[in-house]
Amino acid sequence: MKKVLVTGASGFFGLAAITELKERGFEVHALSRRALPLDGVCWHEVDLLSSNRMVELLDATRPSHLLHLAWNVGPGFWTASDNLDWGALTLRLIRAFHEAGGQRIVSAGTCAEYDWQDTSPLFISEDHPRGPATLYGHVKDCTRRVQEAFALQAGISQAWGVLFMSYGQRERPERLVPAVIADLLAGRATRTTSGEQVRDWLDCRDVGRGFAELLDSQVEGPVNLASGLPVAVRDIILKLGEICGRPDLVRFGDIASRKGDPSRLVANVDRLSGEVGFRPARTLDQGLSDAVDWWKSKAIV
Amino acid sequence: MKKVLVTGASGFFGLAAITELKERGFEVHALSRRALPLDGVCWHEVDLLSSNRMVELLDATRPSHLLHLAWNVGPGFWTASDNLDWGALTLRLIRAFHEAGGQRIVSAGTCAEYDWQDTSPLFISEDHPRGPATLYGHVKDCTRRVQEAFALQAGISQAWGVLFMSYGQRERPERLVPAVIADLLAGRATRTTSGEQVRDWLDCRDVGRGFAELLDSQVEGPVNLASGLPVAVRDIILKLGEICGRPDLVRFGDIASRKGDPSRLVANVDRLSGEVGFRPARTLDQGLSDAVDWWKSKAIV
Repeated sequence: MKKVLVTGASGFFGLAAITELKERGFEVHALSRRALPLDGVCWHEVDLLSSNRMVELLDATRPSHLLHLAWNVGPGFWTASDNLDWGALTLRLIRAFHEAGGQRIVSAGTCAEYDWQDTSPLFISEDHPRGPATLYGHVKDCTRRVQEAFALQAGISQAWGVLFMSYGQRERPERLVPAVIADLLAGRATRTTSGEQVRDWLDCRDVGRGFAELLDSQVEGPVNLASGLPVAVRDIILKLGEICGRPDLVRFGDIASRKGDPSRLVANVDRLSGEVGFRPARTLDQGLSDAVDWWKSKAIV
Repeated sequence: MKKVLVTGASGFFGLAAITELKERGFEVHALSRRALPLDGVCWHEVDLLSSNRMVELLDATRPSHLLHLAWNVGPGFWTASDNLDWGALTLRLIRAFHEAGGQRIVSAGTCAEYDWQDTSPLFISEDHPRGPATLYGHVKDCTRRVQEAFALQAGISQAWGVLFMSYGQRERPERLVPAVIADLLAGRATRTTSGEQVRDWLDCRDVGRGFAELLDSQVEGPVNLASGLPVAVRDIILKLGEICGRPDLVRFGDIASRKGDPSRLVANVDRLSGEVGFRPARTLDQGLSDAVDWWKSKAIV
């Protein structure tokens, strides 16, 4: 039987990933600091950074698959020192998973591994040069290299889901989409940059399902886990204004763009659609509309 | 006062590094699984991989400098899984050192980080393309990248001493020079490859002193810690045959060369000599002669 250990299981993509993995017949062991009430899932409450229970847990469960989503993506994560702790944890996890008989690893990567100065391709494919500009990007990139080298030598299988922009239910409130929704639902003006940056957006439920499909495939190496559709930040905010019925509250240009922020980051998704066979289940309009509904429901509760 | 924490302090380069650091006025805190009897050094017996005492020790000693030499370089180290543990340990060590107020880090790197397929330069400088062919090289290379990115962001200083071939007192007996000496001193034929590979050789005492000088400088980034002199493996073995008085016992070509072994690996040492100001204290002939004397003294004891 396929048995998977999922780290970061209560995080942004965890729920959708676990749901899909269960449907695909996996026995799911979910790791997180705080268990979620979820039928048919073995939940293990573990603080990965401060506990040594990881090895013990791997020995007890002996999973065939590892989906490693856990990392610090809270405020300040681009420069946070604990990127080093998450990198260290990942290296030890990969080795311990292999020693416990594990066969396939999929971990969460980031478009921040790519060289953002090289703007020649309109769509960034997985063979784009690496050149992280942040500590977060550096540590993720290094972790990917070690995962690849170790898996090759150990004779196990691995892939690396490279994330672009994501949004949706249970997103951290300080991030763009929830912050704009919160303003609009509260009737406050929402202050943003000029919004001309073009990005690649995917609903967190599609990201989670994409991770599950990637894990359940035999595809090796980095795979962009994204929509492949270029949409300006400006258009996201305008759509949210329309959905919330308050386009009048949108103020572009009140905030300066972040230094070094690239003008365009859009994925080439040929590997994801062609090799993994993944298609997003919802359009951007549906996803944003669902996100607004979800935040409305939270506001009432 | 300058205060240094040295990991791998009882290892191949530790003794020479510590001696030089003491002479340069450092308060030396030496970490190792097994303390050496050494005057004027604070010794801390710690197994870095299995103990959590590291953070506690950093908080208690609050060193200004870190010389990180510890790693697995025992038999099979090129492919050993615990390269991942040493990489993980290094990431956590770097962060904890910074949090305890540390200002400058020097770590041990390796010529196995460089791309050995790119044979165009006769002397490999520090800007040579990276392209590790082994797990050891990959993890070292990634650790270097993270150290650089973290130090840049944290505003601390760092360098990376890139090792080529080293030899000398207290070398692991399975390595080339001790193995040949053991055969010759025992009157056995010594079986080697054709020995045509050209390498860069430095006495371990010079390597240790080089690490100390690099740490006590303000030089940033990777620095080849090597001799810059091309010498074939064959010539090393012939010299040992002469020193031991048994040139008749040398058998070239009895062992096949290791697959993927590059024909030439010699450092450009412009940074080491020009910026750090380091010069080896002994010639290759002196170093090999001292090594033979040392192994003779061990054989008697």
